[in-house]
This record gives sequence, C-alpha cells and structure tokens, in this order.
Amino acid sequence: MKKNILVIPGDGIGPEVTTWGKAALEKIAEIFGHEFVFEEALMGHAAIEVTGEPLPDETLEKARQSDAILFGAIGHAKYDNDPSLKVRPEQGLLKIRKELGLFANLRPILLFDELLQASSIKPEILRGTDILFFRELTGDVYFGEKTRSEDRNMASDLMIYHRYEVERIAHKAYQAAQQRNKRLCSVDKANVLESSRLWRETVQEIAKQYPDVETEHMFIDNAAMQLIKNPKKFDVVLTANLFGDILTDEASQIAGSMGMLASASVGESTGFFEPIHGSAHDIAGKDLANPLASILSAALMLEIGFGLKEEAKLLVDTIDQVLKEGFRTHDIADQNTNRFKVLGTAEMGKLVLK
Amino acid sequence: MKKNILVIPGDGIGPEVTTWGKAALEKIAEIFGHEFVFEEALMGHAAIEVTGEPLPDETLEKARQSDAILFGAIGHAKYDNDPSLKVRPEQGLLKIRKELGLFANLRPILLFDELLQASSIKPEILRGTDILFFRELTGDVYFGEKTRSEDRNMASDLMIYHRYEVERIAHKAYQAAQQRNKRLCSVDKANVLESSRLWRETVQEIAKQYPDVETEHMFIDNAAMQLIKNPKKFDVVLTANLFGDILTDEASQIAGSMGMLASASVGESTGFFEPIHGSAHDIAGKDLANPLASILSAALMLEIGFGLKEEAKLLVDTIDQVLKEGFRTHDIADQNTNRFKVLGTAEMGKLVLK
Ligand SMILES: CC(C)[C@H](C(=O)O)[C@@H](O)C(=O)O
Ligand SMILES: CC(C)[C@H](C(=O)O)[C@@H](O)C(=O)O
Repeated sequence: MKKNILVIPGDGIGPEVTTWGKAALEKIAEIFGHEFVFEEALMGHAAIEVTGEPLPDETLEKARQSDAILFGAIGHAKYDNDPSLKVRPEQGLLKIRKELGLFANLRPILLFDELLQASSIKPEILRGTDILFFRELTGDVYFGEKTRSEDRNMASDLMIYHRYEVERIAHKAYQAAQQRNKRLCSVDKANVLESSRLWRETVQEIAKQYPDVETEHMFIDNAAMQLIKNPKKFDVVLTANLFGDILTDEASQIAGSMGMLASASVGESTGFFEPIHGSAHDIAGKDLANPLASILSAALMLEIGFGLKEEAKLLVDTIDQVLKEGFRTHDIADQNTNRFKVLGTAEMGKLVLK
Repeated sequence: MKKNILVIPGDGIGPEVTTWGKAALEKIAEIFGHEFVFEEALMGHAAIEVTGEPLPDETLEKARQSDAILFGAIGHAKYDNDPSLKVRPEQGLLKIRKELGLFANLRPILLFDELLQASSIKPEILRGTDILFFRELTGDVYFGEKTRSEDRNMASDLMIYHRYEVERIAHKAYQAAQQRNKRLCSVDKANVLESSRLWRETVQEIAKQYPDVETEHMFIDNAAMQLIKNPKKFDVVLTANLFGDILTDEASQIAGSMGMLASASVGESTGFFEPIHGSAHDIAGKDLANPLASILSAALMLEIGFGLKEEAKLLVDTIDQVLKEGFRTHDIADQNTNRFKVLGTAEMGKLVLK
C-alpha cells in the first residue's frame, strides 16, 4: 500500500514525541512492505515564529494532498499568559479541523492492564472499562462568532449547532456502537441550553434508525461524575465539541495518563491523528515526555485511516509487551516502588521499535 | 437570633431530603435558643403543576422577604425526555438565582474520613483534600440569549461575560483564599474562548490586589483531569457558571457521593442553600435518598448565611459521629461488606437529629 503522510510536529513536546510516531510508521512500512511517503509542515507557535501565521497556506495545501496527518501538539505559555494576543497557536489547529472537515473526533479509552495501578482511580472500578468517545469537532462554541465590546469589558462566544452537524456525527457514533457493545450515551446540557435541546432532539430521531443500540441521554455534569464513579457503564459516548474536550481529558485518568491516549479526527477526506495530550511546555526538550500516545496515534492511522488492522495491532501489542516487561516513562511510573524501569522519551521510543 | 427562612422543597427527592434539613434547623434553634420562622413555597415541576409557572411570583416575593432559603432539588424526567417543551422546571432555579443576584456559588468539598473508602478514587489520593469552589452563577451561557431558527434546524446560546461579573466573584474567591491556604486556581478555556480571555485578564488584574495569594490559571480540560489525578493540589477554585457546574459534580466523587455535598449561593442579599445533587426522580419517594446534603446545606446556612459557626459545627460533627458509628445511606455504603448499617432517608434524618 502506498500512502502520503504529512507530519506536523507542532509545539512543546510535539516534535520529540512525533519523531517516534513517525518512526513507528516507518518500521511498519518496512515489516509489511508498504510505502509511506512522508512530508513535514509547520503549525501553531512553531509556524507563527517562521511565517507569522498559526496555519500557513502551505501546510493546509500539503494537508489536503495527504492521505493522513500525524500531528504532535499545540500551544505555548507565552499566549496562555497573555490573553490579549490576537494571533494564537490554537487557531491553527481549529482552522485545520474546520478546513479539512474533520467533524468527528474519535477517542478510544484504551486500558492497558499493566497500567491499572497508574490511575488515581481504584483498579476494581477501572477493570473492564472500554469507552469510545465521539466528540464533535467543527461546531459548537469553538467556531461560533466571538465578540469583544469596544471598551473591552464584555466578551462573548456563540455556542451554536445545526441539525446536520449533529446528524452526521450521530450516524458515525451509532455505527460504531453497532460494532461494539450496542450502547450509546449522548451527553448534553438540554435542561439549560437550546443548542443541547437541538442536540438531544436530533439524537432521539437518529436513534430510531438504530433500534439495536440502546440509547441513554445524560447531562454533562452528571456524565463528568459517572465517568469516574462507574466508567464501565459506558460504551460509545457521543458529545459536542466543548463537552467532549472536557470529558475526554478527564477520561484520560482512566487510562492512567494522558500520555497513553491517541485520537483520530475524520470526516470528509483525509484523517488527522494525534495524542490527546497538549504541548506541555514545562517538560519540553527534557526527554521526559511519553512517546506512546504518538505511537498509538500512528496505530490509529493504520487502523482507521488505512484499514490496516494487523499493522495497528502489532504496534499496540508491542506497547503492551514493553509495559509488561516493566518499562515506563515518568508519567506512568509509580514513584513509590522500584518495580519499574523508568525511561526517557527516546529510550522508550527505541525500545518499542526494537 | 431571629431569622425568616423560606423552604423550597422542589422536585423529585427534594421534599424528602429538605424535611431533614429543615428539622435540623429547628433542632439547632431549640438547642441554641434562636427563633427560626419557616415559610414554604413552590418551584420547578412542583410549581408548574399548580400554577403553570416554574417560579411563581409569590415564591419570588417570599424569597425576597427571607433571610435565607433552603432549597431541595429541581427537574423532572418528562422534560428531559421532551426537549421541545417550552416551560421547564430548571427555568425556575435559573430565574431565582438571577432575580436574587446570587452570583457566587460556594461549593466546599468536605471530606469525611469515614467516607474515604466510598469514593472510586484511591484513598491515598484523596486524603487531605480540601477544596472550596467558587462557581459564578448568574452569567455565562446559562443566561446569554438563546435562539432557534424558524425551521428549527439551528440553535444557539450566547456565552457571555462582563468584566464586573468576573471581578465581583474573583474578589470573593480571593478573600476566601486569604482565610485558607492562600492558593487560587482560576479555570477557563482562554486558548479558545474570547469570554475566557476576558475572564483570565480580569482575574490577572484582581490577583495583583492579593499578593499573598498564589494564583494559577488552568484550562478546563486540564482541570477536569487534575481534579481526579491530584485533588490535593487545589485550595480555592474559581470558575465560570458552566465549567463550575461540570467540575463540582465531578468533584462530588472526591467526597464519596453527591449525597454528601451542599452549596451556598450568595450575592446581593439573601442566601440560597441547597444540596448539589439533583432531583433523582428514579429514587424519589422510595426512602433511598441521602438527607445529609440537605442537613449540610442547613449547616452552610448557619455558618455563611447567619455567621453561626458553633451551630454549624454541631451539625457537621454530628454527621461525622453518625458515620463513625457505621451508619450509611445506600449511596455511601460499600456493597461488598457488612460493616455498615444501611438506613433509609427518614431513619438517617432521625438519627442525626437525635
Ligand atoms: C488545544 C485546544 C484548542 C484543543 C481543544 O480544545 O480542542 C485541545 O484541548 C484538544 O482537545 O485537542
Ligand atoms: C438543574 C440545573 C439547572 C443546575 C445547573 O446546571 O446549574 C444544577 O445542575 C446545579 O448545578 O445547580
């Protein structure tokens, strides 16, 4: 199989982890005899520094030409500390999602048995958890109109949904549920928000087309609670952009660490694969980051992007094996025991490739 | 001390738990020689059934006359299942918050040692946690303009903040932090939302007036994760209406159960005290609800509303005692052991009063 892959390392720990995601893809190509052609491009703070733009036209053009994109992370402390800056790294990520029509963000909560102990949640609560989040990615308060009054004392963001936006992701989520445990939980705040009432109405309609899937509707506040109280009760979770952002980060604690979770954004054409962790500028360049989420992003690319199930499985199994042998990065090592062999980013990357 | 207290039982389990919050106040009045004069009023589904309105004028009038309000819960499955209904119970709660100017919602995460085991989070992660949330309560996407297109295919809610709204709650939160561990974490989504950028700018300004308090800014997605990863790192958490709704429900898992948490809403005049749990219609009328959050709401009324610290402490200590003796309601009993004496709502209420 021949594929064009665009690598966008981005900011902070993005470059150092993406190195290993890319290396994993190269290794898979070698083993299975595929041809992956790589290109690289800038986005975020890294792009602003060079071109003044968080998403240069050239990056977008390359993205459109690609079969899949491997992305690192975005964001920089400078902008976080100065809310008045007009050009911001995150605009690059939001724009590429919108431009490429990446409306469905899939976030599987993959639980490695070996990491049950790394979570702050009790192992007996976690064991058996298997959740697939569908987060809507090109609508909501992320993309609605923003205003700031002239005296700068009032600011607003429009939370907005169109029925077709809810429908298309709901179909994807229901189809996934049919392949899984046939339960779907749609999360909204329909007791307060009109956009959530549209969301709920629409999901109720779509649900009728999937009578084999059991549907539940839950308010976001309750969902944030249930997710840690009883994560096993969830199968597919379908939710809006903002609620999905919050819930999936929270859910990363189920997997032991953010450093272990990858996501796939799909929609109209090319797919976009990235760790769910952020740029973590505090540890950037220190060889402390966990490269496994980037390698798992590569696995998602193989599976969801290219339909290469066996190849994806090899990566996941290898990671499982490395964890079983007691190797850990800092974020997933239990500081209280000497049971683990704690590795830096590069050592861990190399080990998985071997 | 003479005080006028309005009791609004509301919907679902509201009436059965509020009975015990009120009884606790009566008992305290008896012991300490105060005079508490009680009135009762309707709100939510209970009010719609009788008057057609979720917040009848008469209730609002009585609320304005009162020194404090003890509230139960709001909401009904009928409305949750039919997003198209125009008159909705929750409108009553939102309107009374707005009309009474209850802009600051305080949610202390009170951790009873005895309940460390009731949480899904590991006891060693929880031990020592002591968080006070300040949730903004009369702004945000809760109160911004809502629209629905004529063809009903588009819906929106305006997320909006004014600088003064952020300032007044920030002052309250900083003042509380000064009395506590002098750390304040402000939670927003300033990397995406303009209203969050106004929020962050404003908090940065106010922070300068409280140099003795250490300020941190965190994105909501990260906060949702950190809260369960390392709850001890938080002291005062300051956040907007929607983010506060989500985070505080999530944080209820720290306290073992929603059934153990109370909140105080304060602002311009009278105070409003309520459990953070909802109406839980599935268990309403079955003598299964936990009355302790309502009794703790009464304690918050005594302490925050009336400045009666000793009286409040007696209620909290009594609950602590009852838990130490092994008594539990269903929500906080560990199903796997026979160590606990599991009581119904009324038995638990009576026991605390004794
Ligand atoms: C960086 C930020 C804009 C982004 C988001 O909020 O979507 C991130 O948190 C994510 O979840 O991918
Ligand atoms: C019932 C609902 C409107 C309310 C809210 O979202 O504010 C509740 O969840 C709360 O937290 O008090």
